[in-house]
Amino acid sequence: MYLKKINTLFVMLSILATSLTIKAQEHPSLILTKTGVEKIRSNLGNAPLFDATLEKVKKVVDKEILAGIDTPIPKDFSGGYTHYRHKQNFIIAQKAGVLYQILEDEKYAIYVRDMLLQYEAMYKNLPIHPQERSYARGKLFWQCLNDSNWLVYMSQAYDTIYNFLSEEERTKLEDNLFRPFADYISLENPKFYNRVHNHSTWGNAAVGMIGLVMEDEELIQRALYGIEDDGLPIGGLDNDGGTIKVEGQKKGFFANLDDPFSPDGYYTEGPYYQRYAMYPFLIFALGMENVRPDLKVLQHKDNVLLKGVNALLNLSDAEGEFFPLNDGQKGMSYYTASLVTAVNIAYHYGNKNPQLLSISQKQNEVLLDESGLDVAIAIRDGKAKPFTKNSINLSDGINGKQGGVGILRYGNEDLTLVFKYAAQGLSHGHYDKLSYSLYEKGDEVLQDYGLSRFVNIGQKGGGNYLKENKTWAKTTIAHNTLSQNGEMHFNGQYQTASTKHSELYFFDASKADVQVVSATEVNAYPGTQMHRTMALIKDENFEKAFMLDIMKVKSSTKNDYDFPFYYMGQVINGNFKWDSPSHLVPLGENNGYQHLYLEGKGKPAANNAKFSWLGNGKFYTLTSVANEKDELLLTRLGANDPDFNLRRDAGFMIRRKDTDNTTFVSVIEPHGSYSPVSEASLNSNSHIKNLDIVNDDDDYTAVSITDVKGNKQLFILSNKNALASAKHSLLINNKEYQWTGPYYYK
Amino acid sequence: MYLKKINTLFVMLSILATSLTIKAQEHPSLILTKTGVEKIRSNLGNAPLFDATLEKVKKVVDKEILAGIDTPIPKDFSGGYTHYRHKQNFIIAQKAGVLYQILEDEKYAIYVRDMLLQYEAMYKNLPIHPQERSYARGKLFWQCLNDSNWLVYMSQAYDTIYNFLSEEERTKLEDNLFRPFADYISLENPKFYNRVHNHSTWGNAAVGMIGLVMEDEELIQRALYGIEDDGLPIGGLDNDGGTIKVEGQKKGFFANLDDPFSPDGYYTEGPYYQRYAMYPFLIFALGMENVRPDLKVLQHKDNVLLKGVNALLNLSDAEGEFFPLNDGQKGMSYYTASLVTAVNIAYHYGNKNPQLLSISQKQNEVLLDESGLDVAIAIRDGKAKPFTKNSINLSDGINGKQGGVGILRYGNEDLTLVFKYAAQGLSHGHYDKLSYSLYEKGDEVLQDYGLSRFVNIGQKGGGNYLKENKTWAKTTIAHNTLSQNGEMHFNGQYQTASTKHSELYFFDASKADVQVVSATEVNAYPGTQMHRTMALIKDENFEKAFMLDIMKVKSSTKNDYDFPFYYMGQVINGNFKWDSPSHLVPLGENNGYQHLYLEGKGKPAANNAKFSWLGNGKFYTLTSVANEKDELLLTRLGANDPDFNLRRDAGFMIRRKDTDNTTFVSVIEPHGSYSPVSEASLNSNSHIKNLDIVNDDDDYTAVSITDVKGNKQLFILSNKNALASAKHSLLINNKEYQWTGPYYYK
Repeated sequence: MYLKKINTLFVMLSILATSLTIKAQEHPSLILTKTGVEKIRSNLGNAPLFDATLEKVKKVVDKEILAGIDTPIPKDFSGGYTHYRHKQNFIIAQKAGVLYQILEDEKYAIYVRDMLLQYEAMYKNLPIHPQERSYARGKLFWQCLNDSNWLVYMSQAYDTIYNFLSEEERTKLEDNLFRPFADYISLENPKFYNRVHNHSTWGNAAVGMIGLVMEDEELIQRALYGIEDDGLPIGGLDNDGGTIKVEGQKKGFFANLDDPFSPDGYYTEGPYYQRYAMYPFLIFALGMENVRPDLKVLQHKDNVLLKGVNALLNLSDAEGEFFPLNDGQKGMSYYTASLVTAVNIAYHYGNKNPQLLSISQKQNEVLLDESGLDVAIAIRDGKAKPFTKNSINLSDGINGKQGGVGILRYGNEDLTLVFKYAAQGLSHGHYDKLSYSLYEKGDEVLQDYGLSRFVNIGQKGGGNYLKENKTWAKTTIAHNTLSQNGEMHFNGQYQTASTKHSELYFFDASKADVQVVSATEVNAYPGTQMHRTMALIKDENFEKAFMLDIMKVKSSTKNDYDFPFYYMGQVINGNFKWDSPSHLVPLGENNGYQHLYLEGKGKPAANNAKFSWLGNGKFYTLTSVANEKDELLLTRLGANDPDFNLRRDAGFMIRRKDTDNTTFVSVIEPHGSYSPVSEASLNSNSHIKNLDIVNDDDDYTAVSITDVKGNKQLFILSNKNALASAKHSLLINNKEYQWTGPYYYK
Repeated sequence: MYLKKINTLFVMLSILATSLTIKAQEHPSLILTKTGVEKIRSNLGNAPLFDATLEKVKKVVDKEILAGIDTPIPKDFSGGYTHYRHKQNFIIAQKAGVLYQILEDEKYAIYVRDMLLQYEAMYKNLPIHPQERSYARGKLFWQCLNDSNWLVYMSQAYDTIYNFLSEEERTKLEDNLFRPFADYISLENPKFYNRVHNHSTWGNAAVGMIGLVMEDEELIQRALYGIEDDGLPIGGLDNDGGTIKVEGQKKGFFANLDDPFSPDGYYTEGPYYQRYAMYPFLIFALGMENVRPDLKVLQHKDNVLLKGVNALLNLSDAEGEFFPLNDGQKGMSYYTASLVTAVNIAYHYGNKNPQLLSISQKQNEVLLDESGLDVAIAIRDGKAKPFTKNSINLSDGINGKQGGVGILRYGNEDLTLVFKYAAQGLSHGHYDKLSYSLYEKGDEVLQDYGLSRFVNIGQKGGGNYLKENKTWAKTTIAHNTLSQNGEMHFNGQYQTASTKHSELYFFDASKADVQVVSATEVNAYPGTQMHRTMALIKDENFEKAFMLDIMKVKSSTKNDYDFPFYYMGQVINGNFKWDSPSHLVPLGENNGYQHLYLEGKGKPAANNAKFSWLGNGKFYTLTSVANEKDELLLTRLGANDPDFNLRRDAGFMIRRKDTDNTTFVSVIEPHGSYSPVSEASLNSNSHIKNLDIVNDDDDYTAVSITDVKGNKQLFILSNKNALASAKHSLLINNKEYQWTGPYYYK
């Protein structure tokens, strides 16, 4: 209802707008604008980073022009030549168009024109792409997604040479190429186009952008609001197992902007996909801002797109690499091209945050448009400030009420905890409620495995998701969280998982030396409640900050719990003996266990299990409160992996059998360093003498940390009341502790 | 005989010298000299790198002075506190002495004096170190080696404050500390002192340096020529299995300089130990140059010490890390302190090679003596030039006739082959005749495993050699060379191995695009001859240079051959099918095989076995001529390794059973790249269509390389005559090839 009203209002407004602008639309107007180009031209030679980028782009494009245009008949998957060539074409055409505008050299316009005309000649009779794997096959590429990429870029290219083309050429291109192209990826593929999904975002943006250039109101409407009657049945699955049509789901660009973004700018699929979707989101919003500012797309949902840029930058480690939450390929970082776009637009259209400039400096390039010029001038003028990442809690869900991701940072990213208590994250989500990863600067201490895919490497399943993504990467046991009875959260059922989310208990980063995030999960294993509290603590008796982890489990039944730590590095030692099998056997048969070999098995030798490793020249020790019946397992990934798709990574696991209620309390303690150059081994031993649970009931869990010098610290968590104003008191060993708020630490 | 004559001559000369220098020796005179210090003082503030180093050193020393002197009763292994403290003491005392001389601030002299007096008080009654593991236990440390380190540094410290001390203090220190200390590590430990070994080098230098300061001719003699009658029996083993006394072996500093260094400056233990021994070699030689230049120690054996610095720098990868030949800990590099000494001395006392200055710039520090000042001034004056590493052949053995190490480099270290055809390398040698490692820039493509030891990490066997060093790291199967019948070269017998060496066939790096090294080994497996020829070839039809490897084997018996490739990275694919066992079982029971798991096993599907991997963002393909009966094995290190002392590294292995004569022909081809940021996968496929052996007899082996475009290249090796002037002709497929020299390539 509400939607329809908006829709009607919009149509009225747009008719009004159209009637007001009687004279023909200027070109370029989409990303580059006439005034923007003039400003750029007059500043050439005055903004070093802009000039350097221009020079670099010119070199690339000139080389391609020399090599000649090739628009081969499509046949390959990603990783193959025709895929690569068509992708390269749209990237270069967009750049060439920009060069034409800035440098006023017609050779660039001719190049774009000739390429577009070649596409026009080919597209008319082009069949659907011969590779049949995709649920929505494209024509130039094996999936509509890539065809949409093409149109997003080619719309820009077209806009830049619009005035260079004859009326006749434009008509030919629009009638035979652009309009049919837009119709194919939308009307003919509603299962691709009409979803809330990064695929559809690309599709919507593509249709909208060519609509803006062509002044085609129908396409613009279709972009913003989707196809009203798509005739699709409810349900249906895409290649990743995601649902195609959900009952009552809105569609179109606004829906894609509304639904997956939380009010904090967190994108529910996770940073890897946020980075991917960021480009169509921002570039179309920018096109709308330039051509149809009245619709306020860029400002939609309280500036959620600009907030999204900030969220995304905060979802990276000290080296700018995104945390590989859900399906994320490790190594992707804010150095990628779409983040250049994002950072430049966020600076120019946002509040000119000088910290963004330092990211641009690191990226060492800018957009060749007005926003990029703006950034380059500001950098030239010495306005850049370091981008400081602080602790941040990012809510998930359309209204920010479907859990979230809490990031605790100590010092200058000396220690970073990424705690995930989010919603499922659509089809790219993993079954990893209340899991976490830990970083020291840019190095992983405890890893999130990420995805199992070699993006664009043709030899590895065409560069697509590998079956190990489902059999390992998405599973619960692949993550640093609780597995129960060898099952996955929600039994690995996407339909169930996607309706549930964890709940924040509290997030408190107000004190630098004790930062806490706490959340609960009651749906992953029906009948079992998990309450995990994680803290970064810097204590004066410890060299570095450490992480305290309290996982309180209550269940109505007795279960076998597995509690893994995917440490990165080489074993130094443990305080318990382990048997080492001479033959390696998989740990289980399914749910990810079939991929783990058991490399060692032992029993705690004391009430604490200690385990140390060396990673990236730094020492780490896990200290965990142990029960005498616990099994301590050393695992190695790689079983049942005939194609070597998985890394041979290590794990340490606490197995606690036949238990209903229990609490796992652990400290991960970074300490010391080792240099192979000086061969100095500094501070290679844990500072912790003992870790004890001194109280654990429904109301309070209290943990005491005794260091090797005998100093004792106490952490008490109020399990039932997270109000900051609530007053608590607890008697431990005849001593009364009183405090206000959800936790006590001293 | 010869030795005795020299000895007699020397005594005469030294008496003459002594009688000429009637007036007392100046101090400092050992490393710093009176004139040197004056020059330094007058240049303070004028040589930035010197000033910066001085500032850094001052900071470190001032902090230690503030913390106070501690000389604890010795009890720990390396990795423990007392070890660390005494080591830190001598390092800081030496620096404090230098600061006293340069800054003329008495607090530094007082610090050194007080520390020495504390040692004097303790040493008188100090028993032998309580840790019993060493074959030659020290007093301050668990082995005489570390005690010798102490004396090498403390001699310098003593020299710098000599004039600050009273006559009485000097007498006390010399009588109760220095002289007994020198006697303990020499007269009382001839098994440590009287060898040709890096241990003895430290011992000799220690005794000699304190002798120079004390003007004690007896100690100087003992340093240079060892202990004449040590009373030791022939034989005996040290902790590493090295022989203590070899029949007819010379001893003392000159012997340690003569024997392990080849005329090219290659040190037979390998670069890791050369780096370690370099400090006592050079610092004592420098002391001799300053105090007794008449004995020309620094110039001994045609300047072999200065040549050694050049050899050592050339034994590093593009990032300055030393190739881990024999027992070498990976990561050790020319950034280590002893290389600062080495590079500064080599510059100052050598031919002022401006390329050495660029290494000093990278090290970002200099020695605080005249040589360091010289380097800093030259850098200030802009004299530094890039250190260019070219292909180099380094002979091994006292006369350069015991094999060697051939290093082929293409481009600016774009591809580096390290081919080892050397002697055994004393007790730190590995059983790896004709093995190699391959680097692309600073990244390992095919690795040499190095040692199995965590130097100075106490938790790992006290930081000492682990048993896996013997059971894995030293074994033949741990290296990229031929293993026969599951045995080690020389049956792993050090006594035999140390009397043998491989023979160079030829080394030709005269053409940049085709560089070849070839060597033979006939002793490792009696009855079997190996002739390995390795070439780096840059062909215009290939994107990057590749490595061609021809291993020709002839045997009087039928054998099972294993031919491994220890690739670094993740499997991309192969052109053959392999079975993947669900349970991992060790590949064998001994000789290193017990540490390898079999992860996959297949048969060649064609006459070439192809295997590709991705490492450090670059693709690599192995193409090897295969026999249909070959077994192709995928291995993983880590079996029978209960303490996780070994890395879980991968290997690919060709197994050829029941064969006498055979030739393994392989190409390792680096190609393309992958970026997780752009997600661009470039040139990910091998350029080679086929690799064929087109002739293989006693006279000639000919290999044809056909690329994917059909271009054919031919490499012919003359197996019997390596003369550069020899003329050859060979008929292949009715075509006659004629050439001059050991190989043909076109």
